[in-house]
Amino acid sequence: MAAAAAERERVPFTFSAAGLDHPHIHSMVQGLLDAGAQLMHIYDENPDQANALRAKFQTGQVVQELSAILHSEVDLVATSIVPSKRGALGVQVLEHDKHFLSAKAPFTTMAQLHAAEDAVRRSGKKWAVFYSERLAVEAALLADGIVQEGLIGELFQLTGSGPHRLQAETRPAWFFDPGKNGGILCDIGSHQIEQLLHYARCKDAKVLHSKVANYAHPQYGDWQDFGDATLVTDTGVSQYFRVDWFTPEGLRVWGDGRTVLHGTNGFVELRKYTDVARSAVGDHLYVVTDEEEIYFPAKGKVGIPYFRQLIDDCVLGTETAMSQEHTFRAAALAIQAQEQAISLTKAGERR
Amino acid sequence: MAAAAAERERVPFTFSAAGLDHPHIHSMVQGLLDAGAQLMHIYDENPDQANALRAKFQTGQVVQELSAILHSEVDLVATSIVPSKRGALGVQVLEHDKHFLSAKAPFTTMAQLHAAEDAVRRSGKKWAVFYSERLAVEAALLADGIVQEGLIGELFQLTGSGPHRLQAETRPAWFFDPGKNGGILCDIGSHQIEQLLHYARCKDAKVLHSKVANYAHPQYGDWQDFGDATLVTDTGVSQYFRVDWFTPEGLRVWGDGRTVLHGTNGFVELRKYTDVARSAVGDHLYVVTDEEEIYFPAKGKVGIPYFRQLIDDCVLGTETAMSQEHTFRAAALAIQAQEQAISLTKAGERR
Repeated sequence: MAAAAAERERVPFTFSAAGLDHPHIHSMVQGLLDAGAQLMHIYDENPDQANALRAKFQTGQVVQELSAILHSEVDLVATSIVPSKRGALGVQVLEHDKHFLSAKAPFTTMAQLHAAEDAVRRSGKKWAVFYSERLAVEAALLADGIVQEGLIGELFQLTGSGPHRLQAETRPAWFFDPGKNGGILCDIGSHQIEQLLHYARCKDAKVLHSKVANYAHPQYGDWQDFGDATLVTDTGVSQYFRVDWFTPEGLRVWGDGRTVLHGTNGFVELRKYTDVARSAVGDHLYVVTDEEEIYFPAKGKVGIPYFRQLIDDCVLGTETAMSQEHTFRAAALAIQAQEQAISLTKAGERR
Repeated sequence: MAAAAAERERVPFTFSAAGLDHPHIHSMVQGLLDAGAQLMHIYDENPDQANALRAKFQTGQVVQELSAILHSEVDLVATSIVPSKRGALGVQVLEHDKHFLSAKAPFTTMAQLHAAEDAVRRSGKKWAVFYSERLAVEAALLADGIVQEGLIGELFQLTGSGPHRLQAETRPAWFFDPGKNGGILCDIGSHQIEQLLHYARCKDAKVLHSKVANYAHPQYGDWQDFGDATLVTDTGVSQYFRVDWFTPEGLRVWGDGRTVLHGTNGFVELRKYTDVARSAVGDHLYVVTDEEEIYFPAKGKVGIPYFRQLIDDCVLGTETAMSQEHTFRAAALAIQAQEQAISLTKAGERR
C-alpha cells in the first residue's frame, strides 16, 4: 500500500471516461477522483453527454474520437455505455493495454463474457465492474465483517430485494430494449448475485430457478418490470432475490433495497437506502445474535474503500477490491438466471 | 348474523378437544371460548395432556375414550394431534356428524387430504384449519383491507419469511420425524401458501420450485431446519417464502415473521410478531403508497374475528371465516411444495 501510494504521488493514476449512456458514470468518476486518480479524457458518440460530464466535474478534456483515448497513455477507461456494448468496448480497451472499469451489468450475453475472459488472459489487464449495491454501501461492508466474525453463526442463506424507481420519462429508448439492457435479472439482478458470491466467500453457484414478468408496462413489450431467482453456492448456501421497477412515488428514496444474511445463530438485515417511515437516509443495520437485538446506523462509519483499492490493484497487480474470477462469475450467473427465466406474463398480459 | 347469535344464546355452540399433542390447541380452545362456545370434553391418549388442558381452562370434562366425544352431541371437535394423525381423526369426527377444527398442517399426505374431501362431501360438515399466522394476526387482517382498497395498486407478488424458534428441548420425538410432522414446507410453510391464496383472492396456484435442508441439526437425520418455495397463482401473482427453525436466542419473540405484499403502486410490509431492536410487541404495518410512507401499529386495532365467524359458519352453513375449497387447496399446495422439494443437504451434511 505504501509503495502504491508513493508510486501514485510520483505518477498519478490516470483514467478516461468513454461511453456515458447510464448516469452510473457520475459516481464512478467521482469515486476515482476522490481516490486520487486524474481524469484525462471524456468521450461519447453524443457530444452533449460528454460536455455534460465535463461541465459537472470541471476536469478532463472532451475528445472527438475514442481512438484519442485508446492511443493515449491513460491507465484505465471507465464506461457506462449501453450494456450490450460494454463487452466490445472493454476488449478494445484491454487490447490497447489499459485497465477497464464497467458499470454493471458488464455483459448481456455469454459470448461477450467469453471474449472478455480472452482479452484479460491476453493482456493481463483488469476488467473491473462497479457492483455499487454492495461496494458503495457502508452497511453492506459492515455486514460482511459481522458475518466473518461469526456473530450470526454459519451463513446459510441470503435474501435480497432490489426494487428500483422507474422514472420512465428519464429513460432512453435502449433502457426498454432487453436486447440492449440484458433483461432485469442480468441488469439489476447482477448486484444480488455478486453479493451471494461475496458474502458466502464461494467461487461458484448454480441458478436453480428464475422468472421474469412485465406486469404493468405493456407499452414496452417484452421489457421486464419484475424478476426473481434462487441460487445455491457450491458450498450449499442458498439465495433468493427479487428485483422490480415498482418503487412507489411515495417512497422518499429510489428504492427500499434490503439484504438479509441468515445464519445458524443470528441474522443481519440491511436496509440499504432508507428505513421506511423512519429515515430517508440509508445504511441501516439490524442485527440479531444469540445475545441481543442491535440497531446500528452505519452511514459515515466506514467509508467506501473500493476505488482506492481498485487503483492499488491496477498498480500492484493485486486483487483487493475484487478478484477477476469473482467479477466474471457474478456476471455469468446473472446472464444464466436471465436466460433460464420462465416468463409469468407475455408482453404485459398475464397468462 | 343476528339469527346465529340468537341461536347460540338459546343452544350454546359446543365443542370438545381431542388430541392435544401440539400447544396450538391452547389458542384454539381460548379462541372458541372467547367466541362464546362451550368446552364439553377433553381427550388425549396421554391423560397428563388432557389434565393439563383441563387445569388451564377450568372447564370441560376429561374423558377416557374418544368415543365418548364421537357419540356425544357436541357441534365441533378441535385437535392438535400429531399432524400425520389429523386426517384420520377428522374423518371419524365428520362421520359422527360433527364439524372439525384442525391445527395446521392438517395433512401430511395427499391421500389424507383426499379422504378428508370425501368425508366433507358425504357429511356436509366443515373441516376447518386454524392458519394462525394470518387469522390471529391483526396486522395481517388490516393489510388485507389495504390491498383490497387498492392503496398499493395491483398486487403482483407476496414474499414471506417465517422463522421459528426451535426450543429443541421442549419438542416431543414426533416433531423431528418428517413422516409425522410432514416436513418443514408442509408444516410451517402451509401458513405462507394460505396467505398467497387469500391475499391474491385466487382459487389455485402452482409450485414452481421448492427446496429443503438440514443445515445444522445432523442429530435429527432427515428432519429439516430450512425450506423455501416459489409459487404462482392462476391469476399470475407470484410468491416466494422461506421458513426456518433458526430464530436466534437474542430475539425477544419466537420469530421475526414478515410478509410483504408488493403492488404496482406501493407495498405493505407486515412485521408480525416484533419490530427488531424497536419493539417486542407484534402487529406492525409499514405501508408505502404513491403518496406517502406510513407506519401503523395494528395491535389491538381490529381484533380477531376468526372463531366467531367459524361458529357462525357452522351454524348457518356460510363460509365467512374461510371456504372449504381454500382450506384444502392451501394444504394440498403445501404438500406439493414438500414433495417436489430438492434437498440442499443430506442429513445435516452439506452436499
